[in-house]
Amino acid sequence: MPYFTLDTSSLRHWLTEHADLASRLGGNPEDWMIREVSDGNLNTVFIVAGPDGQLCCKQALPHVRVAPEWPMPLQRALYEARYMRATADAVRPAAPELYFYDEEMFLLVMECLTPHEVLRSALIRDDAQPGFSASIGQYVARSVHATSWISRPFEVGSKLLEEFSGNTALTRITVDLILTDPFRPCSRNPEAEAALLSDVTALQDNKPLHRAVGVLQDRFLTARQALLHGDLHTGSIMLHRDDVRVIDGEFATMGPIGFDCGLYLGNLALHACAAPHKQDFIRTEIIAFWSSFTNEFRALLKTGGGDVWALSDETQREELLENFLTSILQDTAGFCGLEMIRRTIGFAQVADYTLCPTPENRTQARRKALQTGQRLILDASTVQNLSDVLALLTLV
Amino acid sequence: MPYFTLDTSSLRHWLTEHADLASRLGGNPEDWMIREVSDGNLNTVFIVAGPDGQLCCKQALPHVRVAPEWPMPLQRALYEARYMRATADAVRPAAPELYFYDEEMFLLVMECLTPHEVLRSALIRDDAQPGFSASIGQYVARSVHATSWISRPFEVGSKLLEEFSGNTALTRITVDLILTDPFRPCSRNPEAEAALLSDVTALQDNKPLHRAVGVLQDRFLTARQALLHGDLHTGSIMLHRDDVRVIDGEFATMGPIGFDCGLYLGNLALHACAAPHKQDFIRTEIIAFWSSFTNEFRALLKTGGGDVWALSDETQREELLENFLTSILQDTAGFCGLEMIRRTIGFAQVADYTLCPTPENRTQARRKALQTGQRLILDASTVQNLSDVLALLTLV
Repeated sequence: MPYFTLDTSSLRHWLTEHADLASRLGGNPEDWMIREVSDGNLNTVFIVAGPDGQLCCKQALPHVRVAPEWPMPLQRALYEARYMRATADAVRPAAPELYFYDEEMFLLVMECLTPHEVLRSALIRDDAQPGFSASIGQYVARSVHATSWISRPFEVGSKLLEEFSGNTALTRITVDLILTDPFRPCSRNPEAEAALLSDVTALQDNKPLHRAVGVLQDRFLTARQALLHGDLHTGSIMLHRDDVRVIDGEFATMGPIGFDCGLYLGNLALHACAAPHKQDFIRTEIIAFWSSFTNEFRALLKTGGGDVWALSDETQREELLENFLTSILQDTAGFCGLEMIRRTIGFAQVADYTLCPTPENRTQARRKALQTGQRLILDASTVQNLSDVLALLTLV
Repeated sequence: MPYFTLDTSSLRHWLTEHADLASRLGGNPEDWMIREVSDGNLNTVFIVAGPDGQLCCKQALPHVRVAPEWPMPLQRALYEARYMRATADAVRPAAPELYFYDEEMFLLVMECLTPHEVLRSALIRDDAQPGFSASIGQYVARSVHATSWISRPFEVGSKLLEEFSGNTALTRITVDLILTDPFRPCSRNPEAEAALLSDVTALQDNKPLHRAVGVLQDRFLTARQALLHGDLHTGSIMLHRDDVRVIDGEFATMGPIGFDCGLYLGNLALHACAAPHKQDFIRTEIIAFWSSFTNEFRALLKTGGGDVWALSDETQREELLENFLTSILQDTAGFCGLEMIRRTIGFAQVADYTLCPTPENRTQARRKALQTGQRLILDASTVQNLSDVLALLTLV
């Protein structure tokens, strides 16, 4: 079937032609309740409910959903399907199950997550059950362990490089919106609020900062350590009580492991900037993330490895791993800083700032995010342990 | 045409069916002189001479040519063709022109290099015109500049990652024969000569060395800086007077730039071990290589760049580049050490040792190569400039 944009009516028809999916819904097509719940920037999402079950249907649009004049190749849905397939066995049940991918319709049909809500919304409503970050740490450890050179024969990573390097349309977004635009005047950056103009100008004139960003640009494109989610912010996570799921893997690319960690921590840290009374809560989540990530990664690597470090015995592997974790933490600090800045003054800012009770509070929160982000980027290479990162975040 | 192994007769027939190629030869098919000149480990190579010109025809065999029981996917010829196409414009005239690639016959038809000879043979016969290493330095600078993140929009490198990551059969050879086997007892390692047994045992028991090799294994697979030749030893270079050409790019992969540099310098250094009276000559070549590589790379990067360092002005780019060159030199030292060891005790050793006048000299030369190689691997990360590398090579 050649591609066309689905609506509730054509989706109903499409589902009737896919018996496996229809049988998950049960009943008759006319019984199915279909509603559009599109929330992200890029795609249309439908929830379909039948008497026996529900489905989530996500279709790529040929343009950015929230900016129709910005074309966006449909192919990104394929990379999301590939990412889900490449990581499913390792991360189950921390991601929705992919039931079907339609290559021509660029449509993913997957497990419907109800009554889950998006972590960012839950945080804003102060409704997230504490400890969710441990699940995310475990998720990152498991997904990168399944795909890295130090844990798998190199042919596994080579295949992933081959399969994901074509995902340039979305990687271009990362390169521009996270790694470049916020640090220079750029038409894609929304106009900054007046009270922040001098902060933004200073940041865009900060040469040492640009140098440090250059190092992170190089890390992102050169250090192909493992398969990344590539967009692991609090809007890419859904949860209900202690059931935490990672969604929206369309930015998947082989890259530095600290990129996934850094984006996640950056969004937690932004929340703490916007809601200073929740600093202790966020601090505990950050500690839970890193502790869970490192413990899970250490445990997984005990069960054998890949071509890298093949000559080393267990003692030496442990030492190499600790050095590796430190270098991941340095990347994490740097990418965390980038994310805090881009979500504050770049395209696609975060809703967390709506928590600020007054415009002055909001300006203060944003200023803190910009200052913290710059400090993280500038000092990333000096980080030796999580306390150093917490200190840079002023969360000690 | 389904694949079959060509001989002189079937190649003559195949050429008659390719008018463009036949016209380069001129005359009638029966006038063409065809001789097999296979020399490397993997392929059959024919030189075809007609009244108007010559062709070099290289066909992949389904097994290692010198070890028929070792199967080897034909697909490697495709990667060599892709490498030649990806780098031709940048490196011309330092590589033979590719005239035609037959995807079904896994056959490359290219410019015939006569009266060129292989650099390794020329070195052994003491017949290489000094200064050839400057051409190689320029070649490496040009090929990696055409393909790296710091010089091109990231989509260029992403496409190359997509096109070359499937070259796993030959990368597996690199991973095993260079990065792993020489450092452990392994059936692929030829039996060491008796006088070297204790040296080999010590090397295979050297835990700090294995740790340092582990770091290089990680660099090779993770640091995808640019498109590498992947097998840049003195047997992959042909020359006639000052006309220097790089051939045999079938190991091409995206990787750390220091890998190409290190393999080349490692083979020069091995030659100096085998022929100690030529140390000054080799030292001069090493200096010429590095000076030519760095000068050419600096000059090329003046004409604009890629997404990496896009925020930096010229002064800052120069500083970032100098740091980058130091890190390339550190990789170079490490991979140089690996190459010296694998070509001395691993599979596919080098003919340079035939220069040693007595068996005792040969043992001494090999011992020196092993000691130098270990020192380079262990101290690679301390290197700050070429003098440090020359000191490790005892060529100061």
